[in-house]
Amino acid sequence: MSSNPAIPDTAVSRLATYLRVLTESQRDGRQYVSSASIGERAGVSPDQVRKDLSHFGEFGRPGVGYDADQLRRHLARILRLDRVQMAVLVGAGSLGSALARYSGFEPRGFRIAAVFDVDPERVGTKLGEVAVEHVDRLPERVRALGASIGIIAVPRVACQRVAEAMAAAGLKAILNFAPAKVEVPESVNVRSVDLARELERLAYHLPG
Amino acid sequence: MSSNPAIPDTAVSRLATYLRVLTESQRDGRQYVSSASIGERAGVSPDQVRKDLSHFGEFGRPGVGYDADQLRRHLARILRLDRVQMAVLVGAGSLGSALARYSGFEPRGFRIAAVFDVDPERVGTKLGEVAVEHVDRLPERVRALGASIGIIAVPRVACQRVAEAMAAAGLKAILNFAPAKVEVPESVNVRSVDLARELERLAYHLPG
Repeated sequence: MSSNPAIPDTAVSRLATYLRVLTESQRDGRQYVSSASIGERAGVSPDQVRKDLSHFGEFGRPGVGYDADQLRRHLARILRLDRVQMAVLVGAGSLGSALARYSGFEPRGFRIAAVFDVDPERVGTKLGEVAVEHVDRLPERVRALGASIGIIAVPRVACQRVAEAMAAAGLKAILNFAPAKVEVPESVNVRSVDLARELERLAYHLPG
Repeated sequence: MSSNPAIPDTAVSRLATYLRVLTESQRDGRQYVSSASIGERAGVSPDQVRKDLSHFGEFGRPGVGYDADQLRRHLARILRLDRVQMAVLVGAGSLGSALARYSGFEPRGFRIAAVFDVDPERVGTKLGEVAVEHVDRLPERVRALGASIGIIAVPRVACQRVAEAMAAAGLKAILNFAPAKVEVPESVNVRSVDLARELERLAYHLPG
């Protein structure tokens, strides 16, 4: 197991954009791409492209550019997107249901492969193509699916308990939609999506 | 109408945190607060607190600290949170329904006061306490509510049209949940919530 160098989140997002650009370039049948052409499609400067890639060793040859296929495979590996990443979701309420049905994950390489809840009225129902299971089954399902990512969409009061269950089940990454902080062992990475924060950032720019 | 200085989003979020800290301090009956005590509760250094506040003029007195009530009111004004900000939501599908029911907006000063859709099966139904209206009513409802923020939760193909309707209705800020970019006049501020991006940023840190 190797771990990636610590780079800013914004750089990670640019790398993911480069990966999509390279996938498109290949569809167009181009064998070599330049940092300028990647940058143009990604909306960043060629310098930025070169700088972002330089964190991961030497790629490309001056005057020739990057081998598109090689760079694409390398970026996919770096981003852990050389395979579909299996995610499990806990919380089948309105937000959880919306996330389970969200169409934007699959094209980017993430699949919500299992959904859990504790409510007997929800367990057994279907969300899209996935049946809601009791949360007691989380550990065995994580193992069976080879899932690495947990998504929390439970009420605030339950989120810490769910995060601990996810960590105990071996998940290494958690995306938390509950409006509260969760504490997990250091080996687990947590990101919180704070929807109100987005509105705060918008409101600041409103005319006063 | 005055506009705020351009500061990083992360600084805006810290200011919003300070506002919440100050509101709590006042509940505890404290008249003066120091940058150290604000910082401690907000999880940032006293220097950072002073630096963030310095964008907006001189506050506080050395050795005495900040007048908690004065600073709170000032921050609320800067953040446009001296009143409840009315938002309207377009798209009453699963994600829109979840947002309309989301409990995390109201405590932070935002209210989804109206919800719109084009689907005749949705128009007239209720989401929590709000009835879904036809999107044709957007302009008059924005005016009547004094709304300034629009939230887009429609499918990708419809989001540009909705963004334009929002701009035409006079909304000055748009939060876009559709997985596509929208173009609006420069006077309108747009933020896109890219849920897959959050997963990409997590996946990068997974063991390889």
